[in-house]
Amino acid sequence: MIQPVILCGGAGTRLWPISTHERPKPFLKLIGERTLFQQALDRVADPGRFASPLVVAGEGHVDFISQQAGDHRLIVEPAARNTAPAIALAAARLDPEAVMLVCPSDHYIADESSFAAAAGRAAELAGEGWLVSIGIEPTRPETGYGYIQRGEALGPGHRVARFVEKPDLERAREFLADGGFVWNAGIFAFRAGTFLEELARYRPEMADAVREAVRQGSEEGPRFYPAAQPFEASQGESVDYAIMENTDHAAVVAAEMGWSDIGNWDALMSARQADAQGNVCGTDARLLGSSGVMTQSDGPRISVVGLENVIVVVEDGEVLVVSRDAVQQVSKLSEGGQ
Amino acid sequence: MIQPVILCGGAGTRLWPISTHERPKPFLKLIGERTLFQQALDRVADPGRFASPLVVAGEGHVDFISQQAGDHRLIVEPAARNTAPAIALAAARLDPEAVMLVCPSDHYIADESSFAAAAGRAAELAGEGWLVSIGIEPTRPETGYGYIQRGEALGPGHRVARFVEKPDLERAREFLADGGFVWNAGIFAFRAGTFLEELARYRPEMADAVREAVRQGSEEGPRFYPAAQPFEASQGESVDYAIMENTDHAAVVAAEMGWSDIGNWDALMSARQADAQGNVCGTDARLLGSSGVMTQSDGPRISVVGLENVIVVVEDGEVLVVSRDAVQQVSKLSEGGQ
Repeated sequence: MIQPVILCGGAGTRLWPISTHERPKPFLKLIGERTLFQQALDRVADPGRFASPLVVAGEGHVDFISQQAGDHRLIVEPAARNTAPAIALAAARLDPEAVMLVCPSDHYIADESSFAAAAGRAAELAGEGWLVSIGIEPTRPETGYGYIQRGEALGPGHRVARFVEKPDLERAREFLADGGFVWNAGIFAFRAGTFLEELARYRPEMADAVREAVRQGSEEGPRFYPAAQPFEASQGESVDYAIMENTDHAAVVAAEMGWSDIGNWDALMSARQADAQGNVCGTDARLLGSSGVMTQSDGPRISVVGLENVIVVVEDGEVLVVSRDAVQQVSKLSEGGQ
Repeated sequence: MIQPVILCGGAGTRLWPISTHERPKPFLKLIGERTLFQQALDRVADPGRFASPLVVAGEGHVDFISQQAGDHRLIVEPAARNTAPAIALAAARLDPEAVMLVCPSDHYIADESSFAAAAGRAAELAGEGWLVSIGIEPTRPETGYGYIQRGEALGPGHRVARFVEKPDLERAREFLADGGFVWNAGIFAFRAGTFLEELARYRPEMADAVREAVRQGSEEGPRFYPAAQPFEASQGESVDYAIMENTDHAAVVAAEMGWSDIGNWDALMSARQADAQGNVCGTDARLLGSSGVMTQSDGPRISVVGLENVIVVVEDGEVLVVSRDAVQQVSKLSEGGQ
């Protein structure tokens, strides 16, 4: 049985104006009729494979989680300290032998059965003591993601040869041509006990802070509140930096599963179904002489004339018109954009 | 003393969504704090040069006129029959010796003193029995306007050598290079009696219909209502086709006066003041990496990222995003667009 751990973090301000600090990305319906958070739960809902998911989220997310998933089992982070401490909180609350499957709640996976199969292979390696990253077979020379190079074979996966930071375009092309590199998607599997051992080895102060926060924490129904003071004392760091790049037991399982981080408006457009002209528009929108256009509105009707590769979003009194080439700049428009 | 006649007609649906059949272009504030109609009145407000203007408008315009100009002297057209019958209604209500200055109410003139000077020259020729068009010195090879070729000199103007329909680009370039052509701006001067004589000569049925409509018409305070039945029997035709292209007494006075017909969104943008990046935006709008952009909104904030030569308009629950190259297509978006 695999123990899913769903992490809710990040405002996703590159999807402003629909995603904001007050209305964060995981809790929006971006593709389909369920929010990304709900889809993350749906993906691990098979009781034959998965235990009941444990959610780790900030105080600002609690109401969204209640609205979208009811009284769910939840650890409420006293402060945002990136993924390593968040995962450590979950690990400290689980049986050391439990195989955790750590999943972000702000990405999209089109092929759920491939995801489940990859999770199974990752869990198999995790049960043998590996700290496993589920990597995505690259489909383009993407410069926005980290890469993982596969090393020697390990049955259902490979040892990690090395982690690579976001490359420039030339290196990204080399990685794609090489075939031995996958995208780091932030999906991990490891035994709770293994993770905490490695954390104590490589980040002992963080491990102490989390242990103390859990020891002094309090339970309220399905929610667990770690103590704020010790937790806040921990440094914030990603699980990649804190553990995966240090451990001698890093493994990778490669998967093709229609994954997208939906990291910006162009990525969201690519993950949606386009018509024959490459447009992705609601039924209300009107296009004349336009192609490669996405529109999205919470009410006002959008009309686009004579344009290519433009995204138009209307939400909550804000109108965004952005070239598909310039979507990375959108977060600058959000208050305190990331 | 010159007798101004202000014509209110045309929905201006190429300026959708701000201009519509229910909210026509003359009654909008497009440039400055006064509507185009109010500016048309302001332009002829000097009591030392101009008599009190006579307005000709449809029933649907009456409320706008009351709101914007009070109880103004007005002829209410029973039906829309284009400019020749509208001008004839005014001519039939005036002293035959009155020199009429016929002005559209849906264009913009930046230089009012040049306009007044041109009106004076046109009125001088009109007093001598000429039917005068005030033509605009062309500044670009425009294919959207008719042209007038100047003939022999006539003191303050010239005889008309010929009227030319909207040319293709090559001919428009020739006209510009030639220097002897001006744009037909729809501004005219003639004696009321002269106009009615020429109308009786070239369009006798139209002249009869208008005479009968005025004879059977009724006065209500400052408003005159021509009789509907005879007027509706008249054909609809422009003053250019009905009179100017037929008469032997056509003259032209050329003027430079910052004229624009504001015929579409690009023309409106050109007539407004741009900043150093060529943008024309309200203070609320936000632009990143964009140039040649115009924004206009009745409330929602507009943000434009990474785009060039795009116009974004938000009005009354409609959002228009149009390339400056494609503005002619906008009228297709308006119900019953022209």
